[in-house]
Amino acid sequence: MTVAVKAVHGKPEAQALSAALGELTAAFGNRVVTSQAVREQHANTITWLPNEPPDAVVFPQSTEEVQQIVRICAKHGVPIIPFGAGSSLEGHVNAPRGGVSVDFRDMNKVLAVHAEDLDCVVQPGITRKTLNAHLRDMGLFFPIDPGADASLGGMASTRASGTNAVRYGTMKDNVLALKVVLANGEVIDTARRAKKTSAGYDLTRLLVGAEGTLGIITELTLKLAGIPEAISAAVCQFPSVEACCNATIQTIQSGIPVARIELLDALQVKAVNIYSKLDLPETPMLLLEFHGTEASVAEQAERFGEIATEFGGGPFNWTTRAEDRTRLWEARHNAAMACFALRKGAQIVATDVCVPISRLAECVAETQRDIATTGFIAPIVGHVGDGNFHVALLVDMNDDAEVTRAKDFCGRLVERALAMDGTSTGEHGVGQGKMKYLKAEHGPVVLDVMAGIKRTLDPQNILNPGKIVAVD
Amino acid sequence: MTVAVKAVHGKPEAQALSAALGELTAAFGNRVVTSQAVREQHANTITWLPNEPPDAVVFPQSTEEVQQIVRICAKHGVPIIPFGAGSSLEGHVNAPRGGVSVDFRDMNKVLAVHAEDLDCVVQPGITRKTLNAHLRDMGLFFPIDPGADASLGGMASTRASGTNAVRYGTMKDNVLALKVVLANGEVIDTARRAKKTSAGYDLTRLLVGAEGTLGIITELTLKLAGIPEAISAAVCQFPSVEACCNATIQTIQSGIPVARIELLDALQVKAVNIYSKLDLPETPMLLLEFHGTEASVAEQAERFGEIATEFGGGPFNWTTRAEDRTRLWEARHNAAMACFALRKGAQIVATDVCVPISRLAECVAETQRDIATTGFIAPIVGHVGDGNFHVALLVDMNDDAEVTRAKDFCGRLVERALAMDGTSTGEHGVGQGKMKYLKAEHGPVVLDVMAGIKRTLDPQNILNPGKIVAVD
Repeated sequence: MTVAVKAVHGKPEAQALSAALGELTAAFGNRVVTSQAVREQHANTITWLPNEPPDAVVFPQSTEEVQQIVRICAKHGVPIIPFGAGSSLEGHVNAPRGGVSVDFRDMNKVLAVHAEDLDCVVQPGITRKTLNAHLRDMGLFFPIDPGADASLGGMASTRASGTNAVRYGTMKDNVLALKVVLANGEVIDTARRAKKTSAGYDLTRLLVGAEGTLGIITELTLKLAGIPEAISAAVCQFPSVEACCNATIQTIQSGIPVARIELLDALQVKAVNIYSKLDLPETPMLLLEFHGTEASVAEQAERFGEIATEFGGGPFNWTTRAEDRTRLWEARHNAAMACFALRKGAQIVATDVCVPISRLAECVAETQRDIATTGFIAPIVGHVGDGNFHVALLVDMNDDAEVTRAKDFCGRLVERALAMDGTSTGEHGVGQGKMKYLKAEHGPVVLDVMAGIKRTLDPQNILNPGKIVAVD
Repeated sequence: MTVAVKAVHGKPEAQALSAALGELTAAFGNRVVTSQAVREQHANTITWLPNEPPDAVVFPQSTEEVQQIVRICAKHGVPIIPFGAGSSLEGHVNAPRGGVSVDFRDMNKVLAVHAEDLDCVVQPGITRKTLNAHLRDMGLFFPIDPGADASLGGMASTRASGTNAVRYGTMKDNVLALKVVLANGEVIDTARRAKKTSAGYDLTRLLVGAEGTLGIITELTLKLAGIPEAISAAVCQFPSVEACCNATIQTIQSGIPVARIELLDALQVKAVNIYSKLDLPETPMLLLEFHGTEASVAEQAERFGEIATEFGGGPFNWTTRAEDRTRLWEARHNAAMACFALRKGAQIVATDVCVPISRLAECVAETQRDIATTGFIAPIVGHVGDGNFHVALLVDMNDDAEVTRAKDFCGRLVERALAMDGTSTGEHGVGQGKMKYLKAEHGPVVLDVMAGIKRTLDPQNILNPGKIVAVD
């Protein structure tokens, strides 16, 4: 297909937009929505970033319909912003240049499950909980758990990971292939279902984490895991964050195939105590989960117990009973909601960085000192097996000065992580919020390479413009 | 840096080549070699593809020297072909347009080992055995084992994997970051040492498997694993290839974290019997390795034994003693050399495909029938946990008709794999040998995307031209 190439440096002209919306409405009828409420729901709603609504929202039902939408938008130079569950944290779904939000709500099917091959094919709008409910009876699950009930398309696009990543990897490790609509409306499959391939450039991994800026995902082939025969959960208090981190390092180095190893700092434990009316000792703690056979999860838990003792941890509790596991993990499950208990009326500014695990204790400790200095209430939780942690700043969003201080804090956190050979974001992605840090992280030549790839795949800059890398 | 952009559609003009070699010699003295013997050693020597030597070989000692080489070659439009151990199988190191082979023999150092972070930084010329010898005393190892003592730069470039991949993944999963010299001589680091990141496009994975066509790797940051506390090996005969494959599927589905699961077909067992003077029953067999604690490897082996029995396998032997493991695995270790015992004076044409594991038995069985029909002697070994297998055709390379029949066989094997939703190569790469299959595998639009990326990163087409994707 040939499309008119017209660089979009700002919002589309009113005439172009109007023509595109007219064609979309002719094609999709009442599946094109332009009400203000719906438009605002389809832009950023959960961070300090302003809400920048699209001009319209379209609800496609097939790859072919997505192609049709892209062709109409490409013809008129109108931006396209893919939308899953709206749980992204860096303004990924904002429409700074207006345009059309493509909501995958109706493309939420499991197209195939290949149990023998441990893979499945899904549409991008399905959420991870819905997928796992579908898989449960087959004894299978999709292991990536970013916390939110995110859509699989969004999870792939932000290269999401979460609590299980220490054992099962991130989205980059669990997407086998993608069906993608390109900026000119053509469709590609990035790979086949073979578990590995050396057949050319790895377009799958290029699209995973591209945040919808290089193409629009309309199908995903995902790796699955067997539901473990046994799961044990463990919880252990420690005298300090350093002790937690050192116990984690030792656990990973010992080759204990821990499935989850999560840090909660003392303030986060306090929040959970208030929220869930518990009386956990308000010290840093690790929460763990082990997957395997009955014998193997028992052995893993016991071995971790020995390591914990070595680093002054205790008391150490573990169990394989489902209801007891839930109780032990209650603190982690409620972590995000519990934060609100610490400051009434405040909103959460959530940010994440990731450092080599050897620098994790130092990075968390310095961050806690920074929090203390700035006076924020800001609990920390971490996927510490990967060196990844989150800070939840409780911010009065009506106080501009405070919002500015929160943004400055996030900037210092990124600088700290970069100085320790870490990254500005372990799993949240770049979106709008972290674009300004990419140059510090990667240097100008890498940004030129990224911009070159963006221009090659999206010469009009209509695919989620204003995210990841600036091209004009 | 700005370089004169001059498209290279064929070999560089004699004058340009001579100027480049003059500048290289002025800069590198006797580290520029043009003798015919050395040039021929630096092109393909181990497959049916013709030997296409470069015009010169240069031996750099640092990233800066690689930059200097690239700048000189770019100025004169002279191709650059990176060279590691020369063990690639699809003509990756051939110089169809002449040019300069960059041999990383002298860039073979371990630059850093971060034991706490389970990573290391190495130069591309180091081989996997040398790296593992260096790491052994630290209790660490780099798990990817493609068989040959390949260089790490080459392994990354071909997205190598091998026997351990079923547990530890492929090179794409075990490279954290790369230092890469671009086609204009600029240098980038694709990522930092953090175990995961969502900070922009995944240039690491784009360069892994790019076969030196998008940039030249001069440093690799690799994930390491702890040497397991215990290793058990197992061997089991089966009545058929199907039974081997079904036992493998069941093993993977059961979540047994097998570290290696290798198929040898009856002919391969026969070859080993001749070569190593053994008297193994000449039936299909599986060889396995389990990594973990003493208790866990025992449990894994026992569970596999139960599965093997279910599929008619036996006798089943397993052991944790190192010398017994070596004995059990002798058949696998000698597989490649043993093939030569089947036909005196013949050479091996080695090829690989990978299919979803549910189709593996069917694909291997059809391939055996094809072998029987064509009359080739061609043992099969497979990394069956990944659905990946190799055929070693024993070919009289002086018989042109036979070579043609071998090539035709490889083509049919690819078509068979593609028809089963597989890939034309699981781990060997594309090089020259499999370029013609990429369109059938990916379709023309994907090839356009790949060519677009190639043109963006290498507008002169000087980086290993004539490999993976045609751009002129």
